[in-house]
Amino acid sequence: MADRVKFLLDDSRIPRAWYNLLADLPVPLPPVLHPGTHQPLGPDDLAPLFPASLIAQEVSTQREIEIPEPVREIYRQWRPSPLFRARRLEQALQTPARIYYKWEGVSPAGSHKPNTAVPQAFYNREAGIRRLATETGAGQWGSSLAFAGALFGIDVTVYMVRVSYGQKPYRRALMEAWGAKCIASPSPTTAAGRAILAARADHPGSLGIAISEAVEATLATPGTKYALGSVLNHVLLHQTVIGIEAMEQMLLADDEPDIVIGCTGGGSNFAGIAFPYLGRRLRGGRAVRIIAVEPAACPSLTRGRYAYDFGDTAHLTPLVKMHTLGSTFTPPGFHAGGLRYHGMAPLVSHVAQQGWIEARAYPQNDCFAAGIQFARVEGIVPAPEANHAVKAAIDEAVRCREEGVSRSILFNLCGHGHFDMQAYTDYLSGKLQDLTYSEEELAMALAALPSVSSS
Amino acid sequence: MADRVKFLLDDSRIPRAWYNLLADLPVPLPPVLHPGTHQPLGPDDLAPLFPASLIAQEVSTQREIEIPEPVREIYRQWRPSPLFRARRLEQALQTPARIYYKWEGVSPAGSHKPNTAVPQAFYNREAGIRRLATETGAGQWGSSLAFAGALFGIDVTVYMVRVSYGQKPYRRALMEAWGAKCIASPSPTTAAGRAILAARADHPGSLGIAISEAVEATLATPGTKYALGSVLNHVLLHQTVIGIEAMEQMLLADDEPDIVIGCTGGGSNFAGIAFPYLGRRLRGGRAVRIIAVEPAACPSLTRGRYAYDFGDTAHLTPLVKMHTLGSTFTPPGFHAGGLRYHGMAPLVSHVAQQGWIEARAYPQNDCFAAGIQFARVEGIVPAPEANHAVKAAIDEAVRCREEGVSRSILFNLCGHGHFDMQAYTDYLSGKLQDLTYSEEELAMALAALPSVSSS
Repeated sequence: MADRVKFLLDDSRIPRAWYNLLADLPVPLPPVLHPGTHQPLGPDDLAPLFPASLIAQEVSTQREIEIPEPVREIYRQWRPSPLFRARRLEQALQTPARIYYKWEGVSPAGSHKPNTAVPQAFYNREAGIRRLATETGAGQWGSSLAFAGALFGIDVTVYMVRVSYGQKPYRRALMEAWGAKCIASPSPTTAAGRAILAARADHPGSLGIAISEAVEATLATPGTKYALGSVLNHVLLHQTVIGIEAMEQMLLADDEPDIVIGCTGGGSNFAGIAFPYLGRRLRGGRAVRIIAVEPAACPSLTRGRYAYDFGDTAHLTPLVKMHTLGSTFTPPGFHAGGLRYHGMAPLVSHVAQQGWIEARAYPQNDCFAAGIQFARVEGIVPAPEANHAVKAAIDEAVRCREEGVSRSILFNLCGHGHFDMQAYTDYLSGKLQDLTYSEEELAMALAALPSVSSS
Repeated sequence: MADRVKFLLDDSRIPRAWYNLLADLPVPLPPVLHPGTHQPLGPDDLAPLFPASLIAQEVSTQREIEIPEPVREIYRQWRPSPLFRARRLEQALQTPARIYYKWEGVSPAGSHKPNTAVPQAFYNREAGIRRLATETGAGQWGSSLAFAGALFGIDVTVYMVRVSYGQKPYRRALMEAWGAKCIASPSPTTAAGRAILAARADHPGSLGIAISEAVEATLATPGTKYALGSVLNHVLLHQTVIGIEAMEQMLLADDEPDIVIGCTGGGSNFAGIAFPYLGRRLRGGRAVRIIAVEPAACPSLTRGRYAYDFGDTAHLTPLVKMHTLGSTFTPPGFHAGGLRYHGMAPLVSHVAQQGWIEARAYPQNDCFAAGIQFARVEGIVPAPEANHAVKAAIDEAVRCREEGVSRSILFNLCGHGHFDMQAYTDYLSGKLQDLTYSEEELAMALAALPSVSSS
């Protein structure tokens, strides 16, 4: 058979521990602050929302955190996920670059999100929790928690950003197939939702609003905890199985990446593939460029301010230091709903602020063009979010061709586009617009950032 | 880690040859007849539709037919597909049965169909063909040929059964993402389509009609060949990679199936998992029960007549001996669109007629109930077609519990349900009806079967 294109690991190679970047940071992460006192938060402050085991992971500085055996048992249904060499794409681009992608769409929910949904459901169930509330953008997180909830006997309620709820009805159906309840956000079921709807009855929603609703519902319903699909340290931690496996698979390919690429909304799939490589570099290991790719219509890393802000719109969350467009910023309704978040994971923001990673932003039509090109040679139709990473990988490969240099490019293909086909239809029929935000709204949202002296 | 649930083979174990059941039949298959002369068809009669290499496979009695290396190279993107032990389902059913499923939803198109789409595109391209016409029911075949066409630089036109075209718009979008053209059938683009529309403007279509349109378009357009996604010997042949791999994986599991199950529409995924086992039995090997499962609303094997009939509605195809409901029979618009065909593969019909396999039929609500039960424990949401196999596997496992016997049950999970979520929504909201056909229409369709003396 010709040169290898697929690099598989057997079940025994499912990582036994997650990798915690906090252990290797030469500059510590700014503390999370109480929204009232502006003092650093203690574990007790988070106890109404999360079980103690996840709070401990949130603040741990231990480098390796053991993956519980019941979680590894569920992981093995789709993990280790395959790593592919995109030889047909390389050929189509006539590039000397070696392009690799880690394929996370093989999970039952079709994205990387079950990597953290499963341990979150496991730890909650271990703590006796039988009900979880959460939010979702495009629905990849919501369906992943629905899947994990079904396995652990946990009732899941998902507040889904209204524009995605309309664009992606099959994602909602998927959540319901797994037994979860899905509510369009903003909704009349919470005070936060009602306030938004009173101001604008047709509000498209945002992740910030949906988070407010899920947090409010959690606090209002005894026995319920809250689960977040990105942003927090423990969520990023769980995603590091992606990069840990990729490192081993690149060895099988007898190669090492010169460039590692991931798309960024809240930051979890990016952190998943990038942090194990970044940590190795910070410990003195191999140099590697790391690129975070975000949508031009919601450019927190490239246009946002690095400041303390709320994680949600109704200001129910603690204050975290991150790249933010302001918690009142409502991103336009582009199709990569998983990237429509006003902020960025504090850990991703921190490493960007330190200059350890690069960031860039692309408009959605360019990303869909890259996705179609990828689909027609590699066979996989990527999620709109993943198309951002595909686009950056293609751009870097083209640059290799132009410079006559062969570099090794590794990107995370974080999910499939089966539930996003309307977006492809719009793109192919020329109806997809490069949505943008109003500069005025952005300026207003940034001006409304909370004033925090301790930062 | 606990007992194994996943049985993987590496790339080197992709089969090197397809298995041809024709080599092991103690009673030969009745010949295909020319529709005009009722004389056995020669290879030349098929030349306008298929390249010589596929015609040779259609009539070969060689037991092993080599898989070309370029086909194996594409297969390795998703093959060998995984075989799972459904331990969580076993636990939920409290059955002593050992349940295994071969998971074909890992292909880029999400079903087993690329197993034959890729070699068909390969052989056509080898013969210099740049355009293919085909039909599709639920869209799994059409999207698979679109995928294969993209890889080999072949333009693909797909006639999609109108009811599915409406029910599954994302399948159409998937075909278009891969560059194919998708037309709702019956369509005004062919004489066959226009005749049907003249009689009934809102005709829901059927596979028989769509085949007529694709064949007509092929014959009318020089340089175009025709591709079929099921029914024919060479199509079933290509699907045997499923069963060949499963045999090796069951050895890894240190088990052998007592029962092998597949759903049947045209018969290709069923043949794919069953024929290698049936052939082994016919050669004196291990006894195994083999069960074909069809929809109660289109029950060709359980209610049809074993007789010579046309493969299409407009009578453009040769006459084949098969279990048929009559070529003028229009199945009601249930959701398992891949199973809405009036006939059955001649090879599957033959082995059923010989009593070598069993057949049963289920109404769609029972199948969706099984699919939901499966999804909530195993995590995978099956295609509506695949739910028929899931239902039979669950029934057999329950029977094991009732009889206090442990049997090994292997079924083919032929595809995922991502493009069929509206059907799940209908089912979960109680809106799904157990559609049935009119006995009068069936009687009329059977009465209209061609009279063939040589049978």
